[in-house]
Amino acid sequence: MPPSTTSSPGSDLPAAPGIADIEDAARRLHGLAVRTPLLDCPSLSALTGGRVLIKAEMLQRTGSFKFRGAYNRISRLDRAARANGLVAFSSGNHAQAVAAVAAMLGIDAAIVMPSDAPRLKLEATRGHGAEVVLYDRHREAREDIAAALVRERGATLIPPFEHPLIIAGQGTVGLEIADDLRDRGMIPDAVLAPCSGGGLIAGIATAIRDRFPSAAIYAVEPEGFDDTARSLADGKRRTNAPDARSICDALLVPSPGALTFSINRRLLAGGMAVSDEGAQRAMAFAFRHLKLVVEPGGAVALACLLATPERWRGKTVVVVCSGGNVDAATFRDALATKPG
Amino acid sequence: MPPSTTSSPGSDLPAAPGIADIEDAARRLHGLAVRTPLLDCPSLSALTGGRVLIKAEMLQRTGSFKFRGAYNRISRLDRAARANGLVAFSSGNHAQAVAAVAAMLGIDAAIVMPSDAPRLKLEATRGHGAEVVLYDRHREAREDIAAALVRERGATLIPPFEHPLIIAGQGTVGLEIADDLRDRGMIPDAVLAPCSGGGLIAGIATAIRDRFPSAAIYAVEPEGFDDTARSLADGKRRTNAPDARSICDALLVPSPGALTFSINRRLLAGGMAVSDEGAQRAMAFAFRHLKLVVEPGGAVALACLLATPERWRGKTVVVVCSGGNVDAATFRDALATKPG
Repeated sequence: MPPSTTSSPGSDLPAAPGIADIEDAARRLHGLAVRTPLLDCPSLSALTGGRVLIKAEMLQRTGSFKFRGAYNRISRLDRAARANGLVAFSSGNHAQAVAAVAAMLGIDAAIVMPSDAPRLKLEATRGHGAEVVLYDRHREAREDIAAALVRERGATLIPPFEHPLIIAGQGTVGLEIADDLRDRGMIPDAVLAPCSGGGLIAGIATAIRDRFPSAAIYAVEPEGFDDTARSLADGKRRTNAPDARSICDALLVPSPGALTFSINRRLLAGGMAVSDEGAQRAMAFAFRHLKLVVEPGGAVALACLLATPERWRGKTVVVVCSGGNVDAATFRDALATKPG
Repeated sequence: MPPSTTSSPGSDLPAAPGIADIEDAARRLHGLAVRTPLLDCPSLSALTGGRVLIKAEMLQRTGSFKFRGAYNRISRLDRAARANGLVAFSSGNHAQAVAAVAAMLGIDAAIVMPSDAPRLKLEATRGHGAEVVLYDRHREAREDIAAALVRERGATLIPPFEHPLIIAGQGTVGLEIADDLRDRGMIPDAVLAPCSGGGLIAGIATAIRDRFPSAAIYAVEPEGFDDTARSLADGKRRTNAPDARSICDALLVPSPGALTFSINRRLLAGGMAVSDEGAQRAMAFAFRHLKLVVEPGGAVALACLLATPERWRGKTVVVVCSGGNVDAATFRDALATKPG
């Protein structure tokens, strides 16, 4: 569960998942999750004068990496827990993933979603048969609503990032990147990935640093939501201003998780922030040059690379594009932005 | 060179490329062409009740499969030929590919393109440094303009499809599909691919039928441009009505090539046609569910699958999406169409 304070990680945290947990998740996901491609991108490589590869996680089942963690967690529930159903809160990608896994396994699911979530995410979550409980993102606490549902129903809460099995599931993204790089005889200098609660990047860092100890892993966040970057710089968990706004609807968590931060402070090289306009330009670049549909939050790592190409000169850089669930209107607006 | 008549293939045709020629092209392209992924598509598989895989060729260098054939042809030219430059005619995808290969190899290129070609294709072709010669698609013959340039300059014409090395290059699409299927222990029942002059599908059919003799290969064309479908049905080359129109700008060739048809009549199971609206719906489906950018002509095979899902029930079907070079306005219009 996300923290209500920004205290340093305590000793009551569950153990961080290790590489064996990620390998175990990979076996569990085999044949169910899409093994997403690590795409060689000549247009980006030409821009940086190095080698740039995109981990195209928008091609994952449900349109984002979230399926991995959700399946790794939910598929381990016993029959009694399954009978009482699932509860989750999410702006949309974790929502769809939990709903899809619940449908695959025949489990009831109630998902707490903000009323201003992208329509496509709301529709897809309902499309999997889940019950969607809407709340006002600026006036209500989704954790409280979810906790009440858990109490009433005896349901199991599937947290969006703060759980070893969720982190291990997302870590399979890193494992696939590492395997594909090794197959091509490549050693990564850097990996850039979008970051919100920190589960994806914690899992990726665990896998990549196991195989390539010298690789620098960077968290990329929207401006105003750079809690992980500031937490890494300060050595303790920081919280975003409550009035911060961003179009990156997938990356609006107020502060790093206690467990995810305990991993990320150990394994990450640092964090960077990009503007909403930078995210839109990255979406337009991906449309025009990569032929990939990326949602605003899924595009921030690419935006970071596009904003600082000189920084990666001669380097081998992996950029994670974490999701592609975006409404047509939002996509159209992004295509109308000037190329940077 | 494309035919000016629709006579049956004569004995003066060059030999059709075989599997060894395609394997040779694959070695030549290794590390230069993107090895595009064969994507497992749960959303499409659910729709047909079978297994659907997408060969995502919009992720290829220059945004379409055309790079493969262009490089396989051009890279074999000797120093003297290179010094005299290249000429090509194309609505845009072959144009970009020839321009990109010419730039890689330091060769001058003049590309004859219709004045109403998508802006993105015109800009990308010029962006590679090629000279673009515009013509009126409804009043001038691009072959004549190209022939004049060849005569004046002593340049080498790089035909869009009617050449064994071009066909062999495009055939590497089929070779990769076959290798990936074999790795996954899968046997294809059918392969659907967009078709214009027939070079792509001739190459694909040569590779796939070598590895999987029972696979049925289908050419998919826009309505009004179903010359290959009608030629296959009649056993001789047929021509489209001169007043036919389609938004599928990549698929507007008037009749099959003599060489490509001699291959396709031997190896294809048949041809199907889809409406412009069907192509737009397929583009919208790819945006929403696959997170891929597909251009109208690149989407016709997907459109065919979406129009007849019951036909593929229980079958393993590979759908080739051949390109993603589409202007933002055209893409926006497609997203505004009603899902089918």
